Amino acid sequence: MLPFLRSDLAQLVSYTPHPGGADAAAHGSPTQPAQVDRLDTNESPYDLPEDLKQKLAWAYQHELEANRYPDGGHAALKGAIAQYANQSAYQSAQSSAQSSVSWVTSAHISVSNGSDELIRSLLIATCLRAEGSVLVADPTFSMYGITANTLGVPVVRVGRNAQTFETDLAAASHAIATPAAGQPAIRIVFTVHPNSPTGNALTDAELDWLRSLPPHILVVIDEAYFEFSQQTVLAELPQHPNWVILRTFSKAFRLASHRVGYAIAHPELAATLEKIRLPYNLPSLSQRAAELALAHQDALLAAIPMLLSERDRLFQALAELPGITVWPSAANFLFLRLQNDPAEEQLETLFQSLKSAGTLVRKTCGGLRITIGTPAENQRTLNRLRDRL
Amino acid sequence: MLPFLRSDLAQLVSYTPHPGGADAAAHGSPTQPAQVDRLDTNESPYDLPEDLKQKLAWAYQHELEANRYPDGGHAALKGAIAQYANQSAYQSAQSSAQSSVSWVTSAHISVSNGSDELIRSLLIATCLRAEGSVLVADPTFSMYGITANTLGVPVVRVGRNAQTFETDLAAASHAIATPAAGQPAIRIVFTVHPNSPTGNALTDAELDWLRSLPPHILVVIDEAYFEFSQQTVLAELPQHPNWVILRTFSKAFRLASHRVGYAIAHPELAATLEKIRLPYNLPSLSQRAAELALAHQDALLAAIPMLLSERDRLFQALAELPGITVWPSAANFLFLRLQNDPAEEQLETLFQSLKSAGTLVRKTCGGLRITIGTPAENQRTLNRLRDRL
Repeated sequence: MLPFLRSDLAQLVSYTPHPGGADAAAHGSPTQPAQVDRLDTNESPYDLPEDLKQKLAWAYQHELEANRYPDGGHAALKGAIAQYANQSAYQSAQSSAQSSVSWVTSAHISVSNGSDELIRSLLIATCLRAEGSVLVADPTFSMYGITANTLGVPVVRVGRNAQTFETDLAAASHAIATPAAGQPAIRIVFTVHPNSPTGNALTDAELDWLRSLPPHILVVIDEAYFEFSQQTVLAELPQHPNWVILRTFSKAFRLASHRVGYAIAHPELAATLEKIRLPYNLPSLSQRAAELALAHQDALLAAIPMLLSERDRLFQALAELPGITVWPSAANFLFLRLQNDPAEEQLETLFQSLKSAGTLVRKTCGGLRITIGTPAENQRTLNRLRDRL
Repeated sequence: MLPFLRSDLAQLVSYTPHPGGADAAAHGSPTQPAQVDRLDTNESPYDLPEDLKQKLAWAYQHELEANRYPDGGHAALKGAIAQYANQSAYQSAQSSAQSSVSWVTSAHISVSNGSDELIRSLLIATCLRAEGSVLVADPTFSMYGITANTLGVPVVRVGRNAQTFETDLAAASHAIATPAAGQPAIRIVFTVHPNSPTGNALTDAELDWLRSLPPHILVVIDEAYFEFSQQTVLAELPQHPNWVILRTFSKAFRLASHRVGYAIAHPELAATLEKIRLPYNLPSLSQRAAELALAHQDALLAAIPMLLSERDRLFQALAELPGITVWPSAANFLFLRLQNDPAEEQLETLFQSLKSAGTLVRKTCGGLRITIGTPAENQRTLNRLRDRL
């Protein structure tokens, strides 16, 4: 190993965007099926409508200057995000009505190169210099732990209920109360609401536990799938300066190729994230695309009811198949496991067989995470699973 | 201060993309001059040629899918960069001829969201967990120190010769030999070749010193302005596994809005950078734009001889003006200082007066850094400086 590298990096496992599937994701490979249903990364199955695509292409050609650095302050985009956040402060599913808030301003927003950059910035802001460890509840989005590892920040892992995937709150409380010998105390708790890959939203018990955490622990609530779940903790944010919400344009807003995420946080935390981020972190066209997506949010989000209804249709049909357990989901994907598969060999066989047939899903956490695609894609998913179970 | 934030972050000063000039950089403000010459960020004054802009707009509209994550492996772009690097292994200015190499492959390349992301990744790879400090020679590009500070990495600063801006090598050697009490030893040395904001390329003495550094110290040679200086250490890289070259598409290749930088390094270091970076760090169109720029490199780099000749013309004319010192430059900018300005009040006055007239430059390190623009812009720069000195 090169002697200037940190010794702990040799063991680092990085995030694999398309595990076992990069080749299948590329079109036109002669050994691959002609048509591939890309249901492995929870994207929207729909590109932007043609008129918006054309508008952005025109803006790129005639309005944006390729040779000039982007706006490093994201002023226009932050304003539009604040307005959207105010309008989209849905109550949790348990309560009676949707509602809006009016307190979100640009000072609460930090925009990033995908939520990934924010995950890194939050870790940098809190845990470096041996000032903190991270708590996650597995199975969950792997980037929290991976990013912590790249920064040399210790990760404490607790489990979830095997039936409901609710966080093991007793274990989580214990982990916070009793840091491991020689490790810094937990300074940041990552949650994703609803969770990936399992699709469950935070329960009342989990929310109460997050509310009970002391002010020196930062609580990250990653609402990447908010537009599908319509559940958010935004209305509560002013009472919890130690909470931060992450959202993204990569899912419901159909802009995964542009890499735009954002945080909603106490102005002091938002200002700190702005200081830590790279000064020109977002290309000019990415900023323009996110602004345009918000200006046309009704058109883009119009696909959501159909995707949710497709998700429920697929869930019902999969629930009737033998040998698998499938979980209800508040997001745009479903998670399933084989009922008798301790060695995961059958799971790998199933994953590869689906891939060969042209359905690319994500094998993770002892199961398959399957994105909801177009009705035709979902029907193929169902048919292919039916044939194989 | 929010109690979960690292205590050392309160003092952090972040990078200011347009210091004192963000408003002037925006068009159409009624209090600003109608025309602003943006000579403060060392961009090319020329956008992409119309046919390339149109090609990219067409590709965005018809070939790229906004809803799909970008290629996280950058396979096509890495291959093109490797080929370009092989062709562009110019010898240093002191030697007789240009030459090419043939050993650069995709395994030596890591592509990033601007060189900024690589600066951060290199610091993460080497210095975190109190494993190292950073050495810089001021005045130099401020992002090295700022990024280190965000990560809590100590920065050791040495000076440069006041006439030539050559690094104070005795001080640098001393800093490496004798770490400050309680601080980790220096693990990474940042140089920019030619230096910003002063424009001087590495001298033979500096290069010899870099060659003499031990294998456990990483040497970063930031060749952001390589296409202007045509000086590179690439041919020597195989003999120095502890050297890494940074380059960018933001300057000569006219793609600042797209944010594409890259590293050329020993395959083990390149692989480590790939593990540390964010998995989808580059939007699809940014990758496509960089590929297209390399495919049309002759057309894009054709502007360079004119820019160099403009630089030399401006240098000669400024050298005749009273009361300033201007330095020769190997890059696409010039650096000048007022000869009697200990308090920098006159400098601020000059900076503001130029800005009011419509010439935006960068006030930094006790002087003005002025990007070479179009001939008309450079003539205005000269006229306005003449009027004011």
